[in-house]
Amino acid sequence: MSAVRLARRAALLAPTLPVTTGRIAFDSGHASPALLPDLTAEAARALSAHRAEVLQYAPRAGLPAMRAWIAAHTTADGAAIGPDDVLVTNGAKHALELVCRLLLDEGDAVVVTAPTYFSAIPIIRSFGAEFLEVGQDREGLDVEALGALLARRRAAGQPPPRFLYNVPDYHNPTGITMTGARREALVTLARAAGLLLVEDSPYRLVRFEGEPLPTLKALAPDIVLQLGTFSKLLAPGLRVGWVAAPAPLVARMAQLKTDAGSCPLTQRTILEFCEGGRLAGHTASVQATYRAQRDRMAAALRRELPDADFDLPLGGYYLWLTLPDEFDGEVVERLAREAGVSPLAGSRFFARPDADHPRHHLRLAFSHATPAEIEEGVALLGAVCRTAALAR
Amino acid sequence: MSAVRLARRAALLAPTLPVTTGRIAFDSGHASPALLPDLTAEAARALSAHRAEVLQYAPRAGLPAMRAWIAAHTTADGAAIGPDDVLVTNGAKHALELVCRLLLDEGDAVVVTAPTYFSAIPIIRSFGAEFLEVGQDREGLDVEALGALLARRRAAGQPPPRFLYNVPDYHNPTGITMTGARREALVTLARAAGLLLVEDSPYRLVRFEGEPLPTLKALAPDIVLQLGTFSKLLAPGLRVGWVAAPAPLVARMAQLKTDAGSCPLTQRTILEFCEGGRLAGHTASVQATYRAQRDRMAAALRRELPDADFDLPLGGYYLWLTLPDEFDGEVVERLAREAGVSPLAGSRFFARPDADHPRHHLRLAFSHATPAEIEEGVALLGAVCRTAALAR
Repeated sequence: MSAVRLARRAALLAPTLPVTTGRIAFDSGHASPALLPDLTAEAARALSAHRAEVLQYAPRAGLPAMRAWIAAHTTADGAAIGPDDVLVTNGAKHALELVCRLLLDEGDAVVVTAPTYFSAIPIIRSFGAEFLEVGQDREGLDVEALGALLARRRAAGQPPPRFLYNVPDYHNPTGITMTGARREALVTLARAAGLLLVEDSPYRLVRFEGEPLPTLKALAPDIVLQLGTFSKLLAPGLRVGWVAAPAPLVARMAQLKTDAGSCPLTQRTILEFCEGGRLAGHTASVQATYRAQRDRMAAALRRELPDADFDLPLGGYYLWLTLPDEFDGEVVERLAREAGVSPLAGSRFFARPDADHPRHHLRLAFSHATPAEIEEGVALLGAVCRTAALAR
Repeated sequence: MSAVRLARRAALLAPTLPVTTGRIAFDSGHASPALLPDLTAEAARALSAHRAEVLQYAPRAGLPAMRAWIAAHTTADGAAIGPDDVLVTNGAKHALELVCRLLLDEGDAVVVTAPTYFSAIPIIRSFGAEFLEVGQDREGLDVEALGALLARRRAAGQPPPRFLYNVPDYHNPTGITMTGARREALVTLARAAGLLLVEDSPYRLVRFEGEPLPTLKALAPDIVLQLGTFSKLLAPGLRVGWVAAPAPLVARMAQLKTDAGSCPLTQRTILEFCEGGRLAGHTASVQATYRAQRDRMAAALRRELPDADFDLPLGGYYLWLTLPDEFDGEVVERLAREAGVSPLAGSRFFARPDADHPRHHLRLAFSHATPAEIEEGVALLGAVCRTAALAR
């Protein structure tokens, strides 16, 4: 079967999320409505002082000022890069699609964690790639297991995987933050094995505690393609993301972009926001709000679901709940939706549905629901689980 | 070679346009700077009254209000469709890419005119399709030749082409408007042959004379996928286009969209503009301005290049110039760029570069240059052609 046909078929099998029907959304990567910034002044400046720029076609690789800002931002975060190392995209998913278009041939192997970000799965699959899964523990991706996997492939005469995709900071869905030692070990192994690393980093600034650890990009800029976005920090609707990669790869991905340039109006509006000095204060609000919502959810879970287990994520939007072994997350998800709250079954987050994955996890987003909804939603979820346990 | 590898290779061979270096841009599909509307009030309303809508993720198929507006607009233009028949995209090129993802398998045949829109070529080619070319005359696509081509394939036991791509209104690059009789003949033939029609219609409202003819979509809504955009009417930078197609195809293309929804901010800003009653007046300005610029260019060409030939386009952005047979458009393009004006060689617009196509055409955009630049640019072009003729 051709790659194209595979792509169509894969997309039709893609884990399209159910439309949220419950009153309380724990399934959504939406932002807290309270955090959506007022961008009217920024858009007005973009549309007046920069009218010709924002209403004509933009350069396919992004506005030069936007590329420069992202390069400076990335450099301040430890990876010294220049504007030519940045491609502006229509969000981070579009960045991942372009990375796949650049790197993947049908049948290539791609390494992902088990579980991994569910929206990455159909994008990678649509290029006819084969998924290889590696596990995680509390320190992040199991680099030792990855080394064994690579060695087995070498011994069997199989080519190395084309890239590894991971979310080292506040992993989606597990919330795990890779330790510094694991990051070092991963880039050392990847370099030795000729493995490219795709570091998806949407939540990097949505940090609740402690100091940030070095990004993979900072540790090995030449072998890391880092995906970034303004969606999780500023507003999902702006649809501006990027990939930071060596300049020759950026130039080729720009050629693969068929969209006549990403929207210059949203790029310039974001630049006005960031260069106008609002980003630091907004980031602090984002961190404080989501930290409080995480804590609210954690306290409610301890009270309402004392038999369930979770680690407190140090950032991001999600909490990964481990129910007692005998629970089926898909059943709980369905019953919870009927009760008015929408967790996501953990089973949605595995790239290889055929493998023997645990079924007793739920991903709960604490980003979109209000604190009162978090209380009510967790109470509903607790009631659903108690009913499900009694029905056994 | 796999489709994916083909796609990468094709994109690397794509006719990436040279960066305009001359002072006077005849190569560009940019809008006239004088026509870029003031959208500050519209964006402000979008960002205040509709803040949650425009800053969160939007539905993947588009804002319901945008889909409804496009459906009503298309219905008023003769094709009765509903919101479910509309997919909002990041511009019309993105719409074409999604149509290709939906319809094409590697090795499928696609019919295009010779010449055709150059940006469509690498997109279609990247899916591993084979191009079949049909000619045009002053009445548009040669339907008789198409019928013969389809009959030859049938006789040879070859499958019918997967679709035909065309720009019936103010064709890019030739400016030809298909006559009503040709449109009727095309849809009759397509229906009999099981051929889908992709009608690219970016210039539909950029009409200078006469009454509009029925769109292919109006004549045969069930077999036509119509591509539209706000780029050529309102502003290219907004990056909002659409495809109007039967609802089941729209639903499948929405699944193939990996971008988490097109930007709701630009969609809502456009809605504010259109629903606020500004579209009709703006369309009249667009028509008057580009009509005057076309006339200015035509008069200058008659004066400066009396040996060259052209038909006056009834709409659109471009004039297709036929130089005397012995001229090579690529040489003229290069010399003209050195002289400070940038026509595009006609050879860029043929999908099959191996075929024996004429080489003495130029495409001249009259949309972006000011009237004074049009005068100066045509004078420079005339001088270049006289020098080139002398150098023989």
